[in-house]
Formats: sequence, structure tokens, C-alpha cells
Amino acid sequence: MNVKQLIRTVNFTLKQNDLFPEHSRILVACSGGPDSMALFHLLLDVAAHRHIHWHIGVAIMDHQIRRESKDEVLWLQDRVKALNLDFYNVAIDVPAFSMERKISVETAGRDIRYGWLTDLARAKRYDYIAVAHHKNDQAESILAHLIRGSGMNGLQGMSVLSHSYAIPVVRPLLEVKKEALLAYLEERHISYCVDCTNDDIEYQRNRIRHCIIPELEKINPAVIDSLERMSRSVTEDMEFLQQMAQEVFDTLISVDDRSCTVSRRRLRQQPMALQRRLWQMMVRVVDNRLILSFAHQAQLSDIVQTGEVKTFTIARIIIEARCDTIKVYSKH
Amino acid sequence: MNVKQLIRTVNFTLKQNDLFPEHSRILVACSGGPDSMALFHLLLDVAAHRHIHWHIGVAIMDHQIRRESKDEVLWLQDRVKALNLDFYNVAIDVPAFSMERKISVETAGRDIRYGWLTDLARAKRYDYIAVAHHKNDQAESILAHLIRGSGMNGLQGMSVLSHSYAIPVVRPLLEVKKEALLAYLEERHISYCVDCTNDDIEYQRNRIRHCIIPELEKINPAVIDSLERMSRSVTEDMEFLQQMAQEVFDTLISVDDRSCTVSRRRLRQQPMALQRRLWQMMVRVVDNRLILSFAHQAQLSDIVQTGEVKTFTIARIIIEARCDTIKVYSKH
Repeated sequence: MNVKQLIRTVNFTLKQNDLFPEHSRILVACSGGPDSMALFHLLLDVAAHRHIHWHIGVAIMDHQIRRESKDEVLWLQDRVKALNLDFYNVAIDVPAFSMERKISVETAGRDIRYGWLTDLARAKRYDYIAVAHHKNDQAESILAHLIRGSGMNGLQGMSVLSHSYAIPVVRPLLEVKKEALLAYLEERHISYCVDCTNDDIEYQRNRIRHCIIPELEKINPAVIDSLERMSRSVTEDMEFLQQMAQEVFDTLISVDDRSCTVSRRRLRQQPMALQRRLWQMMVRVVDNRLILSFAHQAQLSDIVQTGEVKTFTIARIIIEARCDTIKVYSKH
Repeated sequence: MNVKQLIRTVNFTLKQNDLFPEHSRILVACSGGPDSMALFHLLLDVAAHRHIHWHIGVAIMDHQIRRESKDEVLWLQDRVKALNLDFYNVAIDVPAFSMERKISVETAGRDIRYGWLTDLARAKRYDYIAVAHHKNDQAESILAHLIRGSGMNGLQGMSVLSHSYAIPVVRPLLEVKKEALLAYLEERHISYCVDCTNDDIEYQRNRIRHCIIPELEKINPAVIDSLERMSRSVTEDMEFLQQMAQEVFDTLISVDDRSCTVSRRRLRQQPMALQRRLWQMMVRVVDNRLILSFAHQAQLSDIVQTGEVKTFTIARIIIEARCDTIKVYSKH
């Protein structure tokens, strides 16, 4: 893929998602590493290709995990200022935060980074946050979910446009392979930090990247493309199923003050694909962070199939089944 | 898993699928290897556990690929006769057949074996053919599909009860791991042939078994269980989506003498998850062996989204789009 094709691919990804309109203000999350260095340069290229103007800012968080990170921030500042783009940085003691909260350094880094980015974007009136996840990251993420057994939802992978945070997060490079980014950096003589502040220090991710994907590529050299294509059709399927489940939820389930009531008989008449989703939606009414495991789903499905009187607890949620009525509510 | 738990697990798998009723006649496909030796012994155990009678026959096909295969057939005959079960065998020159048909030895072996088994089952009035695929085979099969990029259908894996052949094929061991079978054989002092007549000589399968799964297990030691659970929920989702697609097909698409006609506008109103399936169903009317690739699906989806007049060929199928009408028919 030459530079022209690369710019067209990124442009196509953005167009497919109606991104970004003229005069958009885009905050690029940058680590100084190859992916995010390529990202803001490519956004400038796509804007030039479209003959439109985007206001681009570059933000870096110094995780203070490695000694050289401070110098890397200064190095990035020079490069960003040379392009006349806005530059933002912050230094946070991620190791201390992770100790304090008893979470992994990676999780702590990600939580703080997205928190800082959304606050910054809001304060400086940015419309979007752009992050540098590419096709290889997508394949790795899908495999990580598959290996952990997190079910179908994980197979959807990351989306180009996500609304999980207060500011929309965009992944313009999601249909581009890492090797195309490296070739671009080389052709454009864009330098980058090797092993910069990012969360690629995860053991799992490294195993997937360096041991598992090369093994899969021995069987199918295009496995990264295949996984990305699969994730797109899975996403379409999941969206449709979720929509169907929502329609059934609205007609079948009474929601009242953070509790749900449903007729056991009418739930039983639904296909298993919808029953599983309806259960997940019911527990979410009571605890919006609870994700049902396969084991929970099997137990809940048993309640539906039989007619027994049963009370059942998952975390802080009580499921009470008597005669035809199943009620889901909170302990407190 | 001890022997008692193993018997209960196999019994549970069969019960879940309403298998096998009293006096069932079951033909077990056997290679003399550990999995299929465990299979017919376990079926005898389950029958004893249920206090019912099944008529079990054991069938082996000598693929004539290896020298020692003839002795192995005689060895198996002794063991089967000692248990008072019916024994059937046939010798077929698989390498010659594969050369003649220009297909791989594995494909040739499988085609001939299932052909022989169904003919035999019909002639001897067997109700079911039982095969020895277990949980590890299931995980390997799912991974093989995932790696080859064959889309969601591959993620469904094999089913306990399948109707792809003239006689129902049953996989009683699908929820049992290989190690449990080996432990069972050891405890019961059941001998078996190592590297017997089977199709595990495939390069891909061996890479998956010996290189990829052990790598995945380093991240999640229970990955085989996870994949099997995932495949079950994928199957539920796929069945429901297929059923929805069938309903829409019946109302939206006119089928006439191996050709289909559909309104472009009405097709466009369907969610993508159904559009993809409707296309597959339309081409199947014309050529029931054609499986649409992701690339074909993308091209067909373009036809639906735009309004252009276009004629488009896939293998021997013509797709003709003019104004609001799309017609799918055969070249000949």
C-alpha cells in the first residue's frame, strides 16, 4: 500500500462513518510511538486531500513509568509546534495511582488517560478524540476476547466511532495494517519513539502479537484481514439481535423503580438468542455494570425452562421465580 | 473428571438432544484410536447407567494408507466380538481415489467413509451413526474456521446432532475433553491403536493442536471450554438470525424456476445482518453449493445501496439490477 492508497483508505474509513465534517476540532491522543505519530500526520494529509480544514490538537500523557518519558514529551512538543498544531501534556504518577486503587498499571494508565483526554477535550471545545488503534490491534483485541471466552460481544472488536466516553472517540486507522503505517513513516521521514509511553507492556498482548498471530499467519497469511472482516459482520449481527431484543424487552418486561418483572411463560416462548439478551438487559436495569457469565446464563435459562419456585442471587441482584412471575431486583 | 462424572456428562449431552431412545440401533464409526475406542465403551456404560438397551455396531474403514492398518482392523474385530457387538469393515484404496478425483487424501477419506457408513447404516437398519469428535476437536475446528476467515457460520462448530447425511450423525463426546477420554481408557484398561486410520494427518490441524492451542492455553488454561461455550451461544444466535431471514425471504422474494426476483428498495430496508443472509439464500436457489465470500457480499451490498443498472456475475450466477428489480438466475 503506497502513501496515496493509505490516505484514501483512512479517508474511506472516515467517510463511511460520516467523519469528520469541515472545521471539526480533533484531539489526537499521542504517545510519540509510531502509530500515533502516523495518526496526526495522516489526518493532516486527509484534510489536504479533501481540501478542507480541521483543527488538530495533540495530547500526550507522561505515565512516569520510564525515565526517558520526560524527554520524549519535550521531543514531541517540538515536532507538534513545528506543524503549528496545539500541544497538551500532563504528567501523572501512574504506578502510584495503580497501587492506591489496587488495579494494574495498564488499567490505571488507560483510565487516567481517557479521563484526562475527555476533560481536556471538553475544556478546549474539541469535538472528537482520535486514537491510533489499527487493524493489527483490532485482530489482537478480538483474539484476546476469544481466548478469555468473553462471548460474542468481544468478537465485534473495536468500532471506528465509539460513544463510550463523554466525547466521541474515533479510530481512523482501524482498517490499516501496522506495516502500512511503518512504511508511511519511513517514506515521509517522520521519526518516532520506540517503546514510548503506551500500554503495550501487557503480557497477554505481547504473547498474542509475537507468538500467536505469527502462528496463525503460517496457516493463513491474511488472518488479520480475515479477523477484521469477521468482526464487521459479527457487529452487524449483534446490532440486529440487540435491536430485536430491545423490541421484545419493551413489550414483555415491566420496569419499575430499578426492578423488572416478566412472565416466565412468555419468556420461555422467546428463542434462546433473545432470552440470553433479555436476561442481560434485566440485570442491567438493576446493576448497569454486571455482565452475565455463561454459567449465570445457563442457570437463568434453567429457571425459565422449569416451573420451579426459586430464589437466586448474582452479586447484589436477586432473581425470584414463583409461579409465572420472575422478578429481578436489588438486595438493597 | 472421574469415570462416573464422564458417563454422566455423556448422558447429559445425549439427554439434552433427546438421544438415544430405548432400542436405538447405533452404528459407531471407529478407527481403533483412543477417541472412538472410548466412544463405544462409553455408550455401553451410558446404556447400563440408564438401564436400557441399545443395539450397538462398530464399523471401521481401512484407508489403506499405512501398512499396519490391516492388522489393526483384525485387532479391533477381536475386541468388538468379545463384547458381543456387531462388527463391519471395508478396505478402500483412499490414495487411489484421491488421485482419481483430484482431492486431498483427507477429503477423499472423509467422503468415502461417510458414504460407506450411511449405506451400511441404511442396509442394516441403524437409526444413528455415532462419531467420536470431542471438545478438543470442537475447539480446533472453530479455530480452523476462524483462521481461514470463513465467517460466523464456522464459529458455530460441530453440533451434537447433525442431519447433513441420510442417517443422523451424533457426537456424544462433544462436551468431553480428550484428557478425560484418555484417563477413562487407562482406568478401564482399554487398549487402542496409536496413530490409527484417521484423518489427523492434516498439516493445519496439527499446527492448531500442537502449536496454537498450547499458546492460547498459556493465556487461558480453560480456552477449550471457552471456545465450546462460545460456539453454543453463536449457534443459538445464528439459528435465530437464519429463521428471521427465512421469514423475510418468504415475504420479500419471488422464486420461479430456479431464479429469484426482489425489490431493491425493500431489500435496502432490511438490516445488514438480514441482507447478507438473503443474498446467500437467493444464490442458493440457483446454485445450492455456492457460498458467498465477504468480497461478494460487499459487492452485492453496493448494488442494493445504490440505484445503478448493473449486471454482475458470480461463478455461474447472474445478478441483474435494473430500476427497482434485482433478478438472480443461472447462466445456462
